[in-house]
Formats: sequence, structure tokens, C-alpha cells
Amino acid sequence: MSREALLARIRDDIRRGATELARDALAVLDEFAQGEPDDALDESVRFAHELARARPTMCAIAGILNHCLAQLGEGADDARTRVHQAVAATLAWSNAATEAAVERATAKLRSAEVVLTHSRSSTVEAVLMRLAPPARVVATESRPGLEGHVLAQRIAAKGAEVELITEAQIGLMVPRVDAILVGADAILANGAVVNKVGTHLLALAAHEARVPFYVCAESFKLSDERELPAEEHDPGELQAPAQSGVRARNFYFEATPAALISAYLSDVVIEDHIELASKRR
Amino acid sequence: MSREALLARIRDDIRRGATELARDALAVLDEFAQGEPDDALDESVRFAHELARARPTMCAIAGILNHCLAQLGEGADDARTRVHQAVAATLAWSNAATEAAVERATAKLRSAEVVLTHSRSSTVEAVLMRLAPPARVVATESRPGLEGHVLAQRIAAKGAEVELITEAQIGLMVPRVDAILVGADAILANGAVVNKVGTHLLALAAHEARVPFYVCAESFKLSDERELPAEEHDPGELQAPAQSGVRARNFYFEATPAALISAYLSDVVIEDHIELASKRR
Repeated sequence: MSREALLARIRDDIRRGATELARDALAVLDEFAQGEPDDALDESVRFAHELARARPTMCAIAGILNHCLAQLGEGADDARTRVHQAVAATLAWSNAATEAAVERATAKLRSAEVVLTHSRSSTVEAVLMRLAPPARVVATESRPGLEGHVLAQRIAAKGAEVELITEAQIGLMVPRVDAILVGADAILANGAVVNKVGTHLLALAAHEARVPFYVCAESFKLSDERELPAEEHDPGELQAPAQSGVRARNFYFEATPAALISAYLSDVVIEDHIELASKRR
Repeated sequence: MSREALLARIRDDIRRGATELARDALAVLDEFAQGEPDDALDESVRFAHELARARPTMCAIAGILNHCLAQLGEGADDARTRVHQAVAATLAWSNAATEAAVERATAKLRSAEVVLTHSRSSTVEAVLMRLAPPARVVATESRPGLEGHVLAQRIAAKGAEVELITEAQIGLMVPRVDAILVGADAILANGAVVNKVGTHLLALAAHEARVPFYVCAESFKLSDERELPAEEHDPGELQAPAQSGVRARNFYFEATPAALISAYLSDVVIEDHIELASKRR
């Protein structure tokens, strides 16, 4: 694949979540490096920085790539080998982080009979597949991409009973569940969680109904920023009527404030990494 | 049309709002009466009661039909004439109620530059068409029926600028608007407003963002009940994946508590008709 095609594989993928994309960014970096000359480490580093900036909302991509660059070290090996080894080490590190976050969330949800989630997060999917007995799950369809359909099919194939709802039904269903579990694309410096649009409404409904609202996310999603740029995608996805005066909007992500989050379930203690003013406990 | 076809015209219409359906129930009653013998008033009264029970969530239908039955009086005319005159009088009364509610809402929104609404209510549509200069409107698509598309097209044709959003984007858009305006299918005895599912989430977002949340609805939507039965429609509307373990849910209405409502804009002072404990002012 060309440099541009490799970059586009990360930049233009609006379906996969942050963890999956960030890991694929490592594979993309490795593939790029293997196509470069033996001594072209600088070019791979430049490409990694370019990749890291490709999706500002998905700071996990930058988080994982920065970790990888820090692993390049001073080794005597050629550039291709050094990138390949750093990628492998970072992949192992990120897998361990996900495993720790998923384990913490699975333990927290052990006594929940019905769990509600929004959109599709690979960490949440892993938790829901691990619950025994199989979870009863309420899943949003997640318009316009319908990522919730993918989640529902995958966990139902593992024995989960899934009720699929429109986003509009969130307020009606939240009081009937024992816990809410969502993933995150980023955790901001103030503790706010950036995730698929609709998450904020879900957190408000959970707060009103006193249902715990958990976020399962790895430490590589921590960001130093207090705000991320809005990501708006193709309005055509909404299939709005083509009429003068009607404009479809298609924002993908939003921030949910820390005050609405019952607990962060992660490989680290998230509260140690966010601003003091945002902590409620 | 047969008795069953006339009944079905109201019972099976899941697109039109309460006001439109209630008025059409009057037309249906008139049509039924005109097909009955001269002296068959009892049969028309029985049919009116049947119609009134056809859609428990839509208490406006019962509200309007009960008003009509009270107009039948003791007149010397034949049954057909008496029903026809009562229907005409009730239609005029309901139009006056709508006009008063719409006028009150239009006055309240005069200084709002951007108004957000959910789904499609005929009263809200009338208000948005009456605002001068033409309103800037944020409208939800309202899955799965997409009534928001109809609203957007109709008000855009009158000069409004409409941003059409998925329900998931409500939390993101509410802080950018000056007011929220929704209709109602019913106002319960405790002041809660029954309306298209998603309204409760909208009210929660409005409350958090301190954006006023107005309900425009006529007095014939007042109900003595504190709760209405859930109306669930064809799950096929969600086009969920056909897979064992995956079940689509399709509830249409929900109640939004009085505490989240900034004002009822109606032909009567709604606070005079709801339980004291529910009043906050």
C-alpha cells in the first residue's frame, strides 16, 4: 500500500472504535517502515507523527504511537527491525492494558443481570462476552452507522440475549437495567469522556434513574486536552430530504462530564491522571 | 367505509400526532353516524366509546370524543343531524383550543433565534411556521418513523432554516439553541407529559444546559391518569439483524416528569388542572 493508502486506512475509518484503530495504526506504521530503506528511521518517525494527527478525536492513536516511538531506543539494528520490534512491544503493552481494563469491568459487572451499552466498543464487547452467565444486554442501534447491530450480532452469537433499541428509547430503558457500560475514544484532562454521540444523554438518564454509569477504557486513551475538535462526517449518512433549507448534521463524538461517571474501569487509576477539581470521590 | 375500516383509520395510524388523530376521530364518527339509520343514536354513541378506547396513549381522542358526546344534547333532530352538529361544534371548539395554545407558544418564542424540537407535532409545526422572522430550527429525524423529515420539509418550504439531527446528537445541540418546544400526546394528572419517545432525554439535556423546555398542547390532552399503558409497535421498523438472541424493541411514547418542564403553553392554565404536588411554581 502507498503512504497515502496507509494513512487513509486510519484517517477514513469511521466505523471502528479507538482501541481497534489505534492497534491498526501500529500495523500501518510497521507496514510503512518495512517498505522504507534500511536507514530511513526518520521517515518512519515522521509518518508516525502524521498518523497520530490523522484523527484528533481518537487520541488513543497518538497515545499508542507515542508509546511505540519511545520504544525505538538506540539499538544497533536497522530501522525496519527497530520499528518492527517497537511495534510488537507496544502491541503487547496495549493488549495487556485492554486485558486489565476488561477484567476490572467484568469483575464490576459480575452481579448485574441486565447491562445497557451504546454504540460498539471493543472493550465493552469483550466484557459482555466474558460475563457468565451470559449477559442480558440492551444495545442501541447507534444511528447512522448502526454499529450496535454489529455488537448485537457478535454477542448474541456467544449466547447473550440482546434487546436492540433506537437511541430515542434510552430514557425508557435505563430504569430497567442494572448498569450502563460504555467505552471511550478519549478521557480528557478534566475527566470528561469522549465517546460516540448519544453517550451524554445516556449518562444523564443513568444519573436521573440512579443506575451506575461505567466507562471501560485503557490508559492510552488519556489526553492532556480539556476539549477535542468536533468530528463531523458525511451528512449524506442521515439520508435527509434533499430540500433547500434542510441541512443534515452528523457529529460523531461528544464529551460526557466527569460528574456523570460512576467509575472509570481501566488498567490504571484514572483519578490519579485527571485534574483534582474533576474528582468527586 | 365499514365500521372496522373506520376504527382502523384511527387505531392503526402510528404516524399522525394526537391533535390530528383526535380531529380525524370526529370525522370518522360523523361518517359512521351518516351510514346508520335515522334513530340509531345509541349505536353512534357506542362507536364513539369504541373509538375513544382505540389508542389508550392518545387520550386526546377520548378527550375530544367525550366533549362531542356531551354536545349531543336532547335535540328533536334525527340522530344523524345531532351527531353531525355535535361534531361540527366540537371541531370548532378544538380548533379554538389549538389556536390559543399556538398563539401562546408563538408569543413565548418570539425572542428565540434557534428552537429545537423532537419528532413532529402539528401544534409545534404551526408555531414554527408563524414565527417571524422565520425560525432557525433544529429538528430530530425521529427514528424509526422519520416524522422529523416531514416537519423539516414543511417548515423549510415556509422559509425556516432547518438542521436535521439524529436523536443521539440531542445532547450536543441543546446548548446551542435558545429554547426547546415539543407537543404532547397527553398531559397526565401529575403534570408529566406523554410524547414521542426521546422527549425525556431532550428534557434532561435542556435541564442540564439551562435551556427552557416548553410543551405546547391543548387542554383536551389532559388525562385523569397518572400513567398510560406503553404502546409498542412493529419491531420490524428497526430493521434489526434477524438473528437468534437479538430482539428489537419499538416503544413509541414515554412520560417526561413535570419537574423538567419549564412551562405548559396551552389554551388553559395547565397548573390548575394537575395535582398540587406536581407544581413547582
